[in-house]
Amino acid sequence: MTDALPDGHAPDGHAEQLRSEQDRVWIEAAIRLARENIPAGGGPFGALIVKDGEIVARGANRVTRDNDPTAHAEVQAIRQAGRALNDFNLSGAVLYSSCEPCPMCLAAALWSRLDRVVYAADRHDAAAAGFDDSEFYELLDTDRDTWTLPRVQVLRPSDAADPFELWNHTADRVEY
Amino acid sequence: MTDALPDGHAPDGHAEQLRSEQDRVWIEAAIRLARENIPAGGGPFGALIVKDGEIVARGANRVTRDNDPTAHAEVQAIRQAGRALNDFNLSGAVLYSSCEPCPMCLAAALWSRLDRVVYAADRHDAAAAGFDDSEFYELLDTDRDTWTLPRVQVLRPSDAADPFELWNHTADRVEY
Repeated sequence: MTDALPDGHAPDGHAEQLRSEQDRVWIEAAIRLARENIPAGGGPFGALIVKDGEIVARGANRVTRDNDPTAHAEVQAIRQAGRALNDFNLSGAVLYSSCEPCPMCLAAALWSRLDRVVYAADRHDAAAAGFDDSEFYELLDTDRDTWTLPRVQVLRPSDAADPFELWNHTADRVEY
Repeated sequence: MTDALPDGHAPDGHAEQLRSEQDRVWIEAAIRLARENIPAGGGPFGALIVKDGEIVARGANRVTRDNDPTAHAEVQAIRQAGRALNDFNLSGAVLYSSCEPCPMCLAAALWSRLDRVVYAADRHDAAAAGFDDSEFYELLDTDRDTWTLPRVQVLRPSDAADPFELWNHTADRVEY
């Protein structure tokens, strides 16, 4: 177990123990979602999002069922939480996942401004079950020129065509 | 312009030039989507997915409109492509994006098994417009213990409760 609380946010012993017990309850619920999702035709992943002591969203892997490569449990939960809370900013909420989020889901958690991410199994457990999470983490750590997925920058738009120029000059834009 | 084609896949000069011209046409279409999305209330990002010379999906950023932190242009396009092609595996297709995909979208491209990712503006242009792509890339490169987003592993499930154990023993699972 690692606890990566940032400096200055270390809770006292009692609060820490209470939070740890609550974390266990929610993570067990996420694991149940993962198990139940297998006979339902999905992948072995479950996630939920908790805010103010309540579950606001649940997600389970639907990649193969929905033909949606992005339908990981965490992404599904984040999308549902945004709808449920009517907000694209999920600060104050915690993501519980049956497995360490892959780079896609981790970046989704960052964009969502979630307070914490709590998980059970890790990327190595996922690899043992045939999933590429660990491989993609390693890829993100290597020199991009060596990637097997070619990434090509073909065109820097001129100022006149640049969407960011237009964005910066749009007074009523909603930033996030 | 960087061209990160893997070894052994270097096309000849004429084919390279033709592909480069086609890339320009598609990337200009993605940039148009990005610009059109701003007065429609979305962020300044557009993407499309091309397979066999045809656009199979379009996406534009809908984060603030839809209260969906994952609704980046590339994710929207990938989701639509999966539905359009009735397949969670998008190999043979290319993603064109008005801006370098953020880590979430890049990992989504990896999970989708796309052949290539082509983009116009880069993470630094996005940063200048107030978006965190560059910051998240840097974060993924740093020691995880220093992250401001706490990530906590609380529970490794016992074999009896482990979704991956159940998955590995499920004969009719659909792998991806």
